[in-house]
Amino acid sequence: MTTTGIYETPTIEQIYRHASVRNYKPDPLPTAMVEAVVAAGQRASTSSNLQMTSVVAVTDPETRTTLAHLCGNQAHIAQAPVFLAWCADLSRLDRICEARNYTHVAEYVENFLLSAVDAAIVMQNAALAAESLGLGMCYIGAIRNRSQEVIDLLHLPRLVFPLVGMTLGWPVAAPMLRPRLPLQAVLHWERYDDSNEEEALIDYDRAMVATGIYEGRQVSVPGQPDQVEEYGWQEHSARRVAQPHRTELRAVLERQGFALR
Amino acid sequence: MTTTGIYETPTIEQIYRHASVRNYKPDPLPTAMVEAVVAAGQRASTSSNLQMTSVVAVTDPETRTTLAHLCGNQAHIAQAPVFLAWCADLSRLDRICEARNYTHVAEYVENFLLSAVDAAIVMQNAALAAESLGLGMCYIGAIRNRSQEVIDLLHLPRLVFPLVGMTLGWPVAAPMLRPRLPLQAVLHWERYDDSNEEEALIDYDRAMVATGIYEGRQVSVPGQPDQVEEYGWQEHSARRVAQPHRTELRAVLERQGFALR
Repeated sequence: MTTTGIYETPTIEQIYRHASVRNYKPDPLPTAMVEAVVAAGQRASTSSNLQMTSVVAVTDPETRTTLAHLCGNQAHIAQAPVFLAWCADLSRLDRICEARNYTHVAEYVENFLLSAVDAAIVMQNAALAAESLGLGMCYIGAIRNRSQEVIDLLHLPRLVFPLVGMTLGWPVAAPMLRPRLPLQAVLHWERYDDSNEEEALIDYDRAMVATGIYEGRQVSVPGQPDQVEEYGWQEHSARRVAQPHRTELRAVLERQGFALR
Repeated sequence: MTTTGIYETPTIEQIYRHASVRNYKPDPLPTAMVEAVVAAGQRASTSSNLQMTSVVAVTDPETRTTLAHLCGNQAHIAQAPVFLAWCADLSRLDRICEARNYTHVAEYVENFLLSAVDAAIVMQNAALAAESLGLGMCYIGAIRNRSQEVIDLLHLPRLVFPLVGMTLGWPVAAPMLRPRLPLQAVLHWERYDDSNEEEALIDYDRAMVATGIYEGRQVSVPGQPDQVEEYGWQEHSARRVAQPHRTELRAVLERQGFALR
């Protein structure tokens, strides 16, 4: 991937080098390095300066092995020296309210969303900081596969939810960069307008097929079962989102105090 | 704010220069510059490569004035040459499913959360890219104050939700950087442990009072109404979260097709 012409800076070049790493050297990370990564994360914007993020850094090999098991048996979770569990955290504000005799309002969708977005932008800052230090990282959405067990394992109190995990360590090799959707499928001017989308998606199917990631598979053309076409991003993504995932999340969130009213 | 010692890179230095900008020059931005910012955003990780983000870039002065009105009368929204409405977007996948004869599963909390986190990390990448180009930005959570009107204004179809706005433009002056919570309040090792939190929060109250942001206000000490103490971050934040905000969000999300089951 290359940046778009004249608008290049060291930070934009760093952003363009991102690819998820799933193969790590066993070498541990200095504690101060993990602290520097999280501290850089904290410099992100935060809604009303409420700072609704916490992160649990796991280095213990046994806990990492358990996490790998809970998060879809991803081997690199046991392999990477550090696992960061990025959490939406309203419990800190809850403790403050209790100490100062205020009644914390936390039961609305807005409260959960506010803390989730706060945590997400902190962790993306941290991801870029880590990558700029030569580390590799991979987000682990599968931390939500068995949320309640992760909550119990990491001793997360009420109003703390493990949003996304992150493996962190020294990459064995430079990972493959993947093309992204053409800009015209994502960026709309003045109002939402998907009239150029179909063409963009066909282009993107071609670009993704060219990476070899789908291994030359073929599928029937929709509506024309006797004709085949290359299996591309659209077919792959449609199959993915036609399956339910993590359907128990609402129940877990409610148990953690996020009522999502 | 300074970075933490030996772990410095140009990207980390850029991250440490962040502060929200609320005062912009009227000069427009080149279209290619906005495109470069959004394209850099797109390089972020995306869950299963589903790329559930869209952004509406608004430059029309009348629409920006309306947006300023809908988003808590923030003058800088009308002033900044560009307003970016970052959206969680499952509609693209919905259109693909329909074209390819799959039934899209989008009714769970997980589906909304997946798209919201995807959008949040894209927009943080874009924010850093913009700042590295000398632009200023400010997130607008108030885009959710009157969500339905924003949805109508920007013609957002079903399964598109305006998560966070962003003003973008040339800053009039360098904004003030704010201290963040001490690391020990946010970073936990091996498991969640808030035993050092109280001390950290007292330190942070002092640091925030020292910025002058609270203008030397005083409040009663909790439980000791005849004694006063300085009004700090804890008191300010407790008052904030003791108020309900955006309580109609769930209803708007349901209308947009996010059932949050």
